[in-house]
Amino acid sequence: MAVLALDLGGTKLAGALFSDDGKLLYRKVNTLNGRQGNAVCELIQDSVTELIDLQKSSDPISSIGVCVPGIYNKTTHCVWAPNIAGWDNYPLLEEIEKCSLGVPVYIDSDRSCSILGEVWQGSAKDCKDAIFVTVGTGIGAGIMANGRIIRGVNDIAGAIGWLALSPVYCSEYEACGHFEYYASGSGIARYAKRLIAEEEGYSGSLSTLPLAQLRASDVFSAYLEGDLISQKVLKQSIRLWGMAMANLVSIFNPEVIIFGGGLFGPATQFLSNIEEEAQK
Amino acid sequence: MAVLALDLGGTKLAGALFSDDGKLLYRKVNTLNGRQGNAVCELIQDSVTELIDLQKSSDPISSIGVCVPGIYNKTTHCVWAPNIAGWDNYPLLEEIEKCSLGVPVYIDSDRSCSILGEVWQGSAKDCKDAIFVTVGTGIGAGIMANGRIIRGVNDIAGAIGWLALSPVYCSEYEACGHFEYYASGSGIARYAKRLIAEEEGYSGSLSTLPLAQLRASDVFSAYLEGDLISQKVLKQSIRLWGMAMANLVSIFNPEVIIFGGGLFGPATQFLSNIEEEAQK
Repeated sequence: MAVLALDLGGTKLAGALFSDDGKLLYRKVNTLNGRQGNAVCELIQDSVTELIDLQKSSDPISSIGVCVPGIYNKTTHCVWAPNIAGWDNYPLLEEIEKCSLGVPVYIDSDRSCSILGEVWQGSAKDCKDAIFVTVGTGIGAGIMANGRIIRGVNDIAGAIGWLALSPVYCSEYEACGHFEYYASGSGIARYAKRLIAEEEGYSGSLSTLPLAQLRASDVFSAYLEGDLISQKVLKQSIRLWGMAMANLVSIFNPEVIIFGGGLFGPATQFLSNIEEEAQK
Repeated sequence: MAVLALDLGGTKLAGALFSDDGKLLYRKVNTLNGRQGNAVCELIQDSVTELIDLQKSSDPISSIGVCVPGIYNKTTHCVWAPNIAGWDNYPLLEEIEKCSLGVPVYIDSDRSCSILGEVWQGSAKDCKDAIFVTVGTGIGAGIMANGRIIRGVNDIAGAIGWLALSPVYCSEYEACGHFEYYASGSGIARYAKRLIAEEEGYSGSLSTLPLAQLRASDVFSAYLEGDLISQKVLKQSIRLWGMAMANLVSIFNPEVIIFGGGLFGPATQFLSNIEEEAQK
């Protein structure tokens, strides 16, 4: 048997076929090209049809798994995806089943899919207690405890970007939470911008860039060049990543915590520092 | 059918019989009177025999549940209980089964039992996602997610006393963790003692007590009398309880969080303040 997998992001849709034991058979990526609402769903339906068709002379497809950039409500079978216009409460399961030719369809949030994938074929293979922390534009966690995904009563568990890691409260955290405010990609860029604006006569690596366009990746590059502001910003991120990691260990007693997302990537060089901070 | 319940604490053993639907049929409390090691187990065995005997002419007993003040290892069936000498790895299941006359025996940690009890007959009745936070001498949590207890790979999940809630790290937290260091019963007493020692000429309500004997309950009494040090200490506890509550909500998305243990009790008056802090 084979499985059909779709990974929807905010800007692209990846489709793939895998063998039962996780071997990649075929993979294709489509960009969304500004598609919104129903048009994104049509792209998904076309991909399902195309992949089923591709596989029809080989092993039959046993199931279809779909990863969405948001929350999948297990009761209503609808998706909330903040980065896809018109997907506030989108009946995705019903729409995909229209073209799945009776093959069972499973939809889940990117948080849950990340840890399910790691347990199936990745760094948490065969683990029953494992956590995947995604650090990109935002921060979230996919959590498996005793072989089951932690979902919460409204399917919104794992919102660790909202972790409060300091008793000093600022109203600025209201939009995204304290941890995410400082330790996500957007948080790192924002904090660096603030420090540059505050430091009169700053002439470090980041000073050559237009402030408005500064991104987290620039902070990582400047760090490697010895820039002091970048060092300060990333030192704080490392401390917060370490604290969050320690807190997840205290709460869940997991076998493994995996860092992923756009920032790991460049932040992978700091894993030992994060561990050191977590040990504290 | 009836159930037989035993609740072992650091200083006493409560035994009870309940009907299937949770009605209390009989209850008896024995103090440990300094018993240690095997002697504690013998007291448990005697209680089991006595309760089975009491119930023998009524409904039969379907199961025996035992709550222990420590960690129960589901694999080895042994108990680690730091406050009972000789119970580092005690084969409690095997010992109780010697006198259970074939009735199945279930042992679990006080953390897990607290939330299981609340879900069965208490404030979380019929919930599938609920958390019981115990604040006494120490701090711990019993966590249920989607109807199952979170245990972790070594059965030590829920160690929320170890939560790091501030980026400022002190080596003093090494013995018990940051949250517990300040917001447990012993933490509240310790912090009050420190502030009294630091404040020259302090003459508030707590000044009449010998400093060495100061307990958390004294801080609560002094708070009600308007003592400024007690206000400062409890304000910090409320902030940390609120932060921990908020973090558990972000991670688990539960239906309810219940505070219990020796401090709730007197800290119950602050529940709305804790909620307010958590909202932030």
